[in-house]
Amino acid sequence: MNIFVDFAMTPGALAALREGTAEHQLLFPQTPAASVLAAPEADPRFCAAEIAFGQPNTKAVAEASLLRWIHVSSSGYTRYDNPQFRSLVAERRIVVSNSASVFAEACAVHVLSFLVAQARNLPAALKTRTGNGTPVWNELRQASGTLQDENVLILGFGAIGTRLALLLRPLGANVVAYRRHARGDEIVPVVTEPGLASALAQAQHIVNVLPDSSQTRHFFDAACFAVIRPGAVFYNIGRGSTVDQTALLGALRAKRLKAAWLDVTDPEPLPDEHPLWQEPNCFITPHLAGGHTNETTSLVRHFLANLHRFVRHEPLVDRIM
Amino acid sequence: MNIFVDFAMTPGALAALREGTAEHQLLFPQTPAASVLAAPEADPRFCAAEIAFGQPNTKAVAEASLLRWIHVSSSGYTRYDNPQFRSLVAERRIVVSNSASVFAEACAVHVLSFLVAQARNLPAALKTRTGNGTPVWNELRQASGTLQDENVLILGFGAIGTRLALLLRPLGANVVAYRRHARGDEIVPVVTEPGLASALAQAQHIVNVLPDSSQTRHFFDAACFAVIRPGAVFYNIGRGSTVDQTALLGALRAKRLKAAWLDVTDPEPLPDEHPLWQEPNCFITPHLAGGHTNETTSLVRHFLANLHRFVRHEPLVDRIM
Repeated sequence: MNIFVDFAMTPGALAALREGTAEHQLLFPQTPAASVLAAPEADPRFCAAEIAFGQPNTKAVAEASLLRWIHVSSSGYTRYDNPQFRSLVAERRIVVSNSASVFAEACAVHVLSFLVAQARNLPAALKTRTGNGTPVWNELRQASGTLQDENVLILGFGAIGTRLALLLRPLGANVVAYRRHARGDEIVPVVTEPGLASALAQAQHIVNVLPDSSQTRHFFDAACFAVIRPGAVFYNIGRGSTVDQTALLGALRAKRLKAAWLDVTDPEPLPDEHPLWQEPNCFITPHLAGGHTNETTSLVRHFLANLHRFVRHEPLVDRIM
Repeated sequence: MNIFVDFAMTPGALAALREGTAEHQLLFPQTPAASVLAAPEADPRFCAAEIAFGQPNTKAVAEASLLRWIHVSSSGYTRYDNPQFRSLVAERRIVVSNSASVFAEACAVHVLSFLVAQARNLPAALKTRTGNGTPVWNELRQASGTLQDENVLILGFGAIGTRLALLLRPLGANVVAYRRHARGDEIVPVVTEPGLASALAQAQHIVNVLPDSSQTRHFFDAACFAVIRPGAVFYNIGRGSTVDQTALLGALRAKRLKAAWLDVTDPEPLPDEHPLWQEPNCFITPHLAGGHTNETTSLVRHFLANLHRFVRHEPLVDRIM
């Protein structure tokens, strides 16, 4: 089969891909993609593709008559998550999967690092040189905590949220998930729309793992920050577009939020002059959550495992359409 | 009974102490202690004490003929951990307990915060403003990890080490403990002296929870850092005296250690001109690990629970002598 591959990978990952696809034909774009997230230009070779691995151009997908399967090289898939694309792939019987499993563990550990760094006051603790017994020292110790008996609300409860809940279990936190529709197989109690305001009012830690979609745009707006528990901490590991950053800034300035930890912003990177950079209790990592050593090799392995399933007509892991 | 109390506490903690000791007589020193760790001057009222709660002066203990029980208001007890004091309390049948349980949870979460901050590269990640797809961004993602399948060696395996092992369990780390004597009830595999060099050579993460004693002084010396796995990360949450800081500095400069995370140093605080402050991969919090909200109230609660046991002749929690 012809496999069109359009994402940047390390030489090791490429070698693994070549080895795992020896029975197939790899097609590469004329202009290589800059990252796993880049939206490439349409490429003339794409029309021969039966499988696309990467971030294929949506227009090219419509024209590629041989295409049977798209494996997206990221967890997010906003580019494809619209009625036109969905009906196109449904009509053409193109299967679509993504790489959610590849990033879930690193994302969950990243947000855990935010939660425990906040609990232990790491940003302030790593800066001070105060001595034992000083007023500053007593204050820092006093402001430190564990997560025991604290309420953590996770919004969006897929692979990342589920892993996070498991990582939080031995810490003794009370974890609740928010989903649009409860499935019944979640490992923690779930609230849906009617229970959301009450859950927000109780949570000391609000972990946003919502994906980007027309329904989630500015999900966290001024009205939402108005009902949160005063002194709560906000974490965003989902997508920047789900937060009205002006409302977030207001909540931080009014000390309604004690702190915010953001791995995603809108736009990315946040411009140097953006006021969130200046907020003393706003901590930002630039979309690093899913990152891990040999990431592109993990992506290739995940694709190859799915390729193995695809040729055997077995169900794909992380199928999204 | 007369209870001599010599540690600084919040008004809330003091109220709890007064309420819980209403049937007894509280004696306070003329000069209040500066912190739970302070070594106070001998106080004339101490001679009437039957119970001492805090950090009693060792000379005063020798002279207090009514004393039956000392409850130390810290986890460390170096001041009392010597043959003279041990034989004094043995001879006089004075029971000694400490506050290890009070600090174990916060200490374990503190070192967990170090471990996951290191795994997610937080110090560098929180500083950069790089955009998605840049070489710096790819490098940062590449250098990030999870703790899955990584070897963590915990040296000293009491309440803190045990809690840490439990917190690390869902992260999928391979935890091994080092103890002088294995008890057989540890929740992870234990190595003793003969297995130490091999365990050090395998560990990606070396967590030092050793207490201060004549046997542990400079436990981590140049010879020890010479056998560790190159690129390992060192964490110290025990006592600063257990580390030869010149050897530590050398291991960091030689990049034999990838990073060091220290909550304890020798001395504390580390002087401003100390070269460890300048090491880019050395991260220091000034003895904050055990700290938590309402810490002195927790100390009082722990003491009161032990007081309850003491008056009933039941075994004390955290008895050390």
